[in-house]
Amino acid sequence: MSKTPAGVPRKRGRPPNVVPSEEYRSRLEDIVSVAAEVFRSRSYDAATLDHVAAALGLSKASLYYYVNKKSDLLRLVFDRAITAALTEVEALAHITDPRERLIALIRHQVRLVLREPSLFAVFFDQRTGLEKSDLAQISLKERRYLRQFVLAVEAAMAVNAIPQRDPRMVANSIIGLTSWCYKWFDPRRDSPEEFADICCELIVR
Amino acid sequence: MSKTPAGVPRKRGRPPNVVPSEEYRSRLEDIVSVAAEVFRSRSYDAATLDHVAAALGLSKASLYYYVNKKSDLLRLVFDRAITAALTEVEALAHITDPRERLIALIRHQVRLVLREPSLFAVFFDQRTGLEKSDLAQISLKERRYLRQFVLAVEAAMAVNAIPQRDPRMVANSIIGLTSWCYKWFDPRRDSPEEFADICCELIVR
Repeated sequence: MSKTPAGVPRKRGRPPNVVPSEEYRSRLEDIVSVAAEVFRSRSYDAATLDHVAAALGLSKASLYYYVNKKSDLLRLVFDRAITAALTEVEALAHITDPRERLIALIRHQVRLVLREPSLFAVFFDQRTGLEKSDLAQISLKERRYLRQFVLAVEAAMAVNAIPQRDPRMVANSIIGLTSWCYKWFDPRRDSPEEFADICCELIVR
Repeated sequence: MSKTPAGVPRKRGRPPNVVPSEEYRSRLEDIVSVAAEVFRSRSYDAATLDHVAAALGLSKASLYYYVNKKSDLLRLVFDRAITAALTEVEALAHITDPRERLIALIRHQVRLVLREPSLFAVFFDQRTGLEKSDLAQISLKERRYLRQFVLAVEAAMAVNAIPQRDPRMVANSIIGLTSWCYKWFDPRRDSPEEFADICCELIVR
């Protein structure tokens, strides 16, 4: 760690009392995207901050301006994934027609995952690396997220748009159907909108 | 590594020219199950052979009778998962009624994953740890596996049991719907047969 002239260790990173600039925030977004790619291809536990810095074309010292340690990056990956998911799904809660609402949720989930498949690959598959307190925060938001799907499924059952079964299990089924694509989807070959259509046709009567 | 009296290093593990005993094979099966649990809870890259030995109540020296290195265990986890999957799905290929065959495949996939959720969690989520040659072997078998689903989906489309869409995408959709349960299913709360029923009702008309 570098030292100030008086010999006091200087804290890493951006001065905490300054509002982050647009440029800082945009750079941090890039860093999170690249970290997700690196964690996906190497696995979080095998990856190092050196790998992430190299993939960004940054020095490790420059990366320390943005994060203090590897688990900060993992938390940022999870934060971005669940925040985007929750914001978008709650914005669909106003749709009153049950069929339309369920279709909107299915399309949302497909688009969300396929917009940043590496981010969601890490989100879904690599949570053992998360700090416990971070995992608790994420789990809370995931429950709110599942709740939106359960509500939409219950409404769709009431109009016979889907079979009348345990709403929580049906909601998890639909999340699985629509999310699994990060494991097989190839954007050079497959169309996101075609896959979204297929999911809607398979599920909604 | 231990030495023979003459000072020649003794090779680790079972003598290669002896047919493995029933007891040896059964013990190895247990080791693979426990390794899958350890790799799932700690992640493959963060886990060590010491962790696996401790979870088995074995010394590391005893574990070396069965495997030479951690990646042997990962290969055995993957082998067991894809071999069980492929054997069982190919045993269903004789079913001539397209609806019945698709229903049998859906039920098979749910039961397979829920029989050993940790094994399949590692299989689906932790392949970055696999040696390249092992991954190539696994991928070949996975293609044969997907093929069985594609054939069943095409036959089901021909009798209007499911919407007529790209069979590969539909097959992957059904595999996602039925496999995702290792992420949320709780055997203290959820019934595998109820979930299998839900998947069939959601998909098959």
